[in-house]
Amino acid sequence: MDQFMRAALDEAKRGGAQGGIPIGAVLVNGGAIVARGHNRRIQDSAPVMHGEINCLYNAGKTVDSFQGMAIYSTLMPCHMCAGAIIQFGITRVYAGESETFDEGRRMLERHGIEVVDMDLDEAKQLMRDFIAANPSQWNQDIGKE
Amino acid sequence: MDQFMRAALDEAKRGGAQGGIPIGAVLVNGGAIVARGHNRRIQDSAPVMHGEINCLYNAGKTVDSFQGMAIYSTLMPCHMCAGAIIQFGITRVYAGESETFDEGRRMLERHGIEVVDMDLDEAKQLMRDFIAANPSQWNQDIGKE
Repeated sequence: MDQFMRAALDEAKRGGAQGGIPIGAVLVNGGAIVARGHNRRIQDSAPVMHGEINCLYNAGKTVDSFQGMAIYSTLMPCHMCAGAIIQFGITRVYAGESETFDEGRRMLERHGIEVVDMDLDEAKQLMRDFIAANPSQWNQDIGKE
Repeated sequence: MDQFMRAALDEAKRGGAQGGIPIGAVLVNGGAIVARGHNRRIQDSAPVMHGEINCLYNAGKTVDSFQGMAIYSTLMPCHMCAGAIIQFGITRVYAGESETFDEGRRMLERHGIEVVDMDLDEAKQLMRDFIAANPSQWNQDIGKE
């Protein structure tokens, strides 16, 4: 696994350790991490603070544009996060896995964004453990409740 | 104009008075406003804080789910905001106008969401005045810079 997905997984675990949903993301430009984030729905009572949105929120503190950058997320982006990636001109998405959730991939690909599904056991196990312990929280996170 | 778009326009003007991009939104459930928000990109150095995302961020403080609600935005949602609307099960979108920006409409309609374009002069004028004075800020907001 490369250093960027490792950093995204570390963010996911940071969120999980806070009692949050363990999904993390990092924004990468020219071989360097620009920003990190994790899902903060539970911590901040903020349904929109998915891992990718939180990462881009944090990125705004240091850069004005995300054009041409890559985002690494431990889980395939949802429709909202896919839309953000499209809107802000991010060109590549690396997902830790898509077994748990796969709704945004088609939207990304339809807009010409390169999507790499790394299909990592570590990423899947994080979500399996969380969902088994908190099924309702997960359903709220993806808008199914 | 109904009271909900009036409230969204008031939010847009509140953001504009702070030096921000004048786009506002309100979330409505069963004839009552659940939350209000406005674009806070400039105020918070937060590119993801479009009017709709800020409205849903605020809504999370009082409700867990946005399923079946309506959102009123002074401008047709972008891809990110359209994706959020889809993800969280919002079923109707009222846009103040779509002349300035129209990128998210097709995505919404493709997902079966009812979109009403109110085509309001007041909404268009707000954006015309802002873009004439701040073209670069507007291009960054929609990810074109």
